Amino acid sequence: MSRAAGCCQKSLHYVFDYETPKTLVIPNIWVGLVFRFVQLLVVLYVVGYVCVVQKAYQDTDSVISTVTTKVKGFAFTNTSDTEPHFWDVVDYVMPPQGDHSFFVLTNMVITPKQTQTHCPQLPTPSTTCVDDCDCIVGHADPRGNGIQTGLCENYSTTVRTCEVLSWCPLEKETKMPERALLAAAENFTVLIKNSVTYPNFNFHRRNILPHINSSYLGKCEFNRTTDPYCPIFRLKHIVSEAGEDFQDMAMKGGIIGIIIDWSCDLDWWAGKCYPKYSFRRLDSKSPVNNVAPGFNFRFAKYYMTPDGEESRTLIKAYGIRFDVIVFGTAGKFGIVPTIINLGAALSFLSLVPVVSDWVMLTCMRKRDLYSKYKVTYLNEDGDSESVSLGTSYGTQ
Amino acid sequence: MSRAAGCCQKSLHYVFDYETPKTLVIPNIWVGLVFRFVQLLVVLYVVGYVCVVQKAYQDTDSVISTVTTKVKGFAFTNTSDTEPHFWDVVDYVMPPQGDHSFFVLTNMVITPKQTQTHCPQLPTPSTTCVDDCDCIVGHADPRGNGIQTGLCENYSTTVRTCEVLSWCPLEKETKMPERALLAAAENFTVLIKNSVTYPNFNFHRRNILPHINSSYLGKCEFNRTTDPYCPIFRLKHIVSEAGEDFQDMAMKGGIIGIIIDWSCDLDWWAGKCYPKYSFRRLDSKSPVNNVAPGFNFRFAKYYMTPDGEESRTLIKAYGIRFDVIVFGTAGKFGIVPTIINLGAALSFLSLVPVVSDWVMLTCMRKRDLYSKYKVTYLNEDGDSESVSLGTSYGTQ
Amino acid sequence: MSRAAGCCQKSLHYVFDYETPKTLVIPNIWVGLVFRFVQLLVVLYVVGYVCVVQKAYQDTDSVISTVTTKVKGFAFTNTSDTEPHFWDVVDYVMPPQGDHSFFVLTNMVITPKQTQTHCPQLPTPSTTCVDDCDCIVGHADPRGNGIQTGLCENYSTTVRTCEVLSWCPLEKETKMPERALLAAAENFTVLIKNSVTYPNFNFHRRNILPHINSSYLGKCEFNRTTDPYCPIFRLKHIVSEAGEDFQDMAMKGGIIGIIIDWSCDLDWWAGKCYPKYSFRRLDSKSPVNNVAPGFNFRFAKYYMTPDGEESRTLIKAYGIRFDVIVFGTAGKFGIVPTIINLGAALSFLSLVPVVSDWVMLTCMRKRDLYSKYKVTYLNEDGDSESVSLGTSYGTQ
Repeated sequence: MSRAAGCCQKSLHYVFDYETPKTLVIPNIWVGLVFRFVQLLVVLYVVGYVCVVQKAYQDTDSVISTVTTKVKGFAFTNTSDTEPHFWDVVDYVMPPQGDHSFFVLTNMVITPKQTQTHCPQLPTPSTTCVDDCDCIVGHADPRGNGIQTGLCENYSTTVRTCEVLSWCPLEKETKMPERALLAAAENFTVLIKNSVTYPNFNFHRRNILPHINSSYLGKCEFNRTTDPYCPIFRLKHIVSEAGEDFQDMAMKGGIIGIIIDWSCDLDWWAGKCYPKYSFRRLDSKSPVNNVAPGFNFRFAKYYMTPDGEESRTLIKAYGIRFDVIVFGTAGKFGIVPTIINLGAALSFLSLVPVVSDWVMLTCMRKRDLYSKYKVTYLNEDGDSESVSLGTSYGTQ
Repeated sequence: MSRAAGCCQKSLHYVFDYETPKTLVIPNIWVGLVFRFVQLLVVLYVVGYVCVVQKAYQDTDSVISTVTTKVKGFAFTNTSDTEPHFWDVVDYVMPPQGDHSFFVLTNMVITPKQTQTHCPQLPTPSTTCVDDCDCIVGHADPRGNGIQTGLCENYSTTVRTCEVLSWCPLEKETKMPERALLAAAENFTVLIKNSVTYPNFNFHRRNILPHINSSYLGKCEFNRTTDPYCPIFRLKHIVSEAGEDFQDMAMKGGIIGIIIDWSCDLDWWAGKCYPKYSFRRLDSKSPVNNVAPGFNFRFAKYYMTPDGEESRTLIKAYGIRFDVIVFGTAGKFGIVPTIINLGAALSFLSLVPVVSDWVMLTCMRKRDLYSKYKVTYLNEDGDSESVSLGTSYGTQ
Repeated sequence: MSRAAGCCQKSLHYVFDYETPKTLVIPNIWVGLVFRFVQLLVVLYVVGYVCVVQKAYQDTDSVISTVTTKVKGFAFTNTSDTEPHFWDVVDYVMPPQGDHSFFVLTNMVITPKQTQTHCPQLPTPSTTCVDDCDCIVGHADPRGNGIQTGLCENYSTTVRTCEVLSWCPLEKETKMPERALLAAAENFTVLIKNSVTYPNFNFHRRNILPHINSSYLGKCEFNRTTDPYCPIFRLKHIVSEAGEDFQDMAMKGGIIGIIIDWSCDLDWWAGKCYPKYSFRRLDSKSPVNNVAPGFNFRFAKYYMTPDGEESRTLIKAYGIRFDVIVFGTAGKFGIVPTIINLGAALSFLSLVPVVSDWVMLTCMRKRDLYSKYKVTYLNEDGDSESVSLGTSYGTQ
């Protein structure tokens, strides 16, 4: 045998000789039972908790969604201080485009025919004056109403305030209607169309489910028990499911979230993937730590008077903003998370012998016998084996 | 040797004695081959599938994005039933701010000079009447047009309907133009500016790539093959890539998603991170289970008549809403996912000896010999070892 | 003993006999130290890096958020070429609803009293003409201003251009104010109300923290050091924290992101979950590869002239769009990620003996002795054991 061949053969030995642990079989049923029981626990955990409860074998993806909304309904107002007025969707829904967030006007303070001119400020401790000396020309109080002209004018027969240059007449802060002007808004309905996509799984779905036909859509109304998949919602129903009183919110305004949960398990037949609707008030209504509770904003309609001057109708709009919030995670069997979870579980299986060995070498009557045959204690000084020191067990 | 020292020494034995499994080397090339082959399979899986295909060694982050859009183009309409009208961006794009979602008006039903007054309803089975007794004062049918005044009026020479208090004249539902009024909209272009951020990786990028200069931007137009990174899109091109006919959509309206995929592998040179554009119709156009196919909404322009009365021009707007949807996940090498995946893979490596042992003790010709030396069967009754019961193999 | 009973007993042996590796204890302190040290390294990595730094034991959830904004402030403009004008929020914030994205008008080019008529185009090389032959009836240059009527008209005393049918008078492109018209906008303030939800953890929170009361909110202003949780921001402060000059941005427009980071560790007392504000310019201001730097859009106010003709005031609005971007990931102890990470770590523990064996059989002085007792080399030819080939060590 040449030297090269010998070296090569030796290398082959390293590569293809198979080294396997020597084992000792203990025919003790209790040790066997402990071993199998701990193994069972690990397997049960993997199958039961990780796979069934947490679905850790799944790849996940986040939802991409598009929403359109269409409100229906009209109202008629005829109060003492406003003219009779008929309201349709165009008048009370903003913005008109039917986006995922829409505002339904329910109450308002209207200040018509404002023009760029000057008028006395609303009386507050800082705006009242005795004569022109109290008013500074050009002064603009951030909490005031405009730029002071330096004049002190009669606001009423009893009060004099500094005159300001502003959109006049000024909005009166006190003139807030007691009851919501558009109380009838509670019976308005909204149709929500929602398409979702899970891009990684190439999965598309609409909230108008395949089994819903036009005639059903024409007359249905969402109800958690009888019509859970009807995409038409009565505003009053939405607000009451969010735990609020509609008339109360209508007066001061607020924000309601229409939450659509598209959490789906796509491993099963796709029909299992249904939208789940829930409703929640999103702004805080607690009187504590709350600046300007409710929700309102001001907007204006601009006009040109016949003599070419710009004029506007200022509207302080109270109402409910509905935000359609779509969220969800889809899960689908994926090889990588499965491998990772199985791998992690296998690691725990490798702990099982450690437990069994400990039981065998500690609790069993014949532990010394087992130890003697399992563990060899190397006597370094002499070239001889010796049995182990009794209760030695696995150091891992 | 004192007792304490002995005890201490014994403890040290437990801590620093190293316990290692006794092994048996089997110089059988077939067993060795099986062992190495299964090992190779596991390693190949880890390297090939987990690392290369799934990039499981990466930390991931979701995109944060800002979009501005700017539509360009104008149109001129001159049909029999409308006055000649010139349309520019300000007239047909809503809202004007250039947000991620913009609506291009392509068709409309205009009802000019509506005022708050009363007029006979549109004739339907439920609104026609013979005399005033058929109409109830104050009745408001949700599918009707207003609040009934209790009068029965001539709608035309042949039909009488209940009069309602509403914005009059009412919108005529039948007067829908056959061909889209702004058919020219197909040649409008939109410039989409999109900045993305992956906050965890502190990575920022725009869809106007560094190598794009102003002169190119001034004349380019998106084309999947020749100009895949030009951020200027012709509306017709967008719609046709979504598999739709522009003129068809323009008539009834619809929603098109402009989807920008910023999935990036940040491990490589960052230039690899490019936007990928795709286009999809987001609303359903199938005639089945479809209330009001297409996309439309109503808005109004409010005017003040010279005598101080409010008047409006109601516009039922059909058109295409373009939603720019940005999504993406960036991946970058991360130590934690790497460790987790390597760990899981190592667990599988620990399965390899189980397979090899099974092959060795079951399929090999000399299995009894291997078994005799590998497995010791403890005879509990006598204090002696015995060879195993033949085909016993690894219980793990 | 019957045959069936024998078979059954044999099966029981397979199931309940416990097979444990035979081990050899090496009383060498250096090998023991290496073993324990490597074990310690793995444990330190798991505890230190995976658990403390990366919090890999946590389940995570993405934030769902709602934002309302309310701008306050007013301005007065009185320049040579505009009439004196008072501006309040209704005039300069768009859209008025107080959404997560709002635009503050800071500069503008106003073209009042546009009507549908014809007028000579703005002079550019492609629009100037000598006589009517240079103008094509019906021609619409996408970069022009309207539909050509075919006439060549005097634009000024020196230049003649093709007449177009358009909204006339045309907007003059050159008439851009040098200094931002609403320079005072830098002192406007914005109140941002933000509610967040982590749906998986049923965790809700607002950016107005529980300890903030109304009187504090009435006078506070965000400051990174003194008032880091005040939700009222001065526009100038936002822009300067984004590294920009307000007056500079006000002139040409731009987009600023108000980024609220709600990254939370929910394992600790929830009070630890605070919003972190940061500000970043989102559009590019670099003069390189930049079409139309800044941010502007056109909108119009439509009027009806007394003789029933439609008229509009076109406004080219420059200003700053503020996008409130909320992001965040909440983490909370979860059993599945914990198991996965522990499992992966245990896999590494199973590597430790491989390292120790290698050290023992390679570097130790008595390696031949250890090898002799640890490894048995099976001599296949004869029915006898033989000691190993010297330096053979674990093949795993």
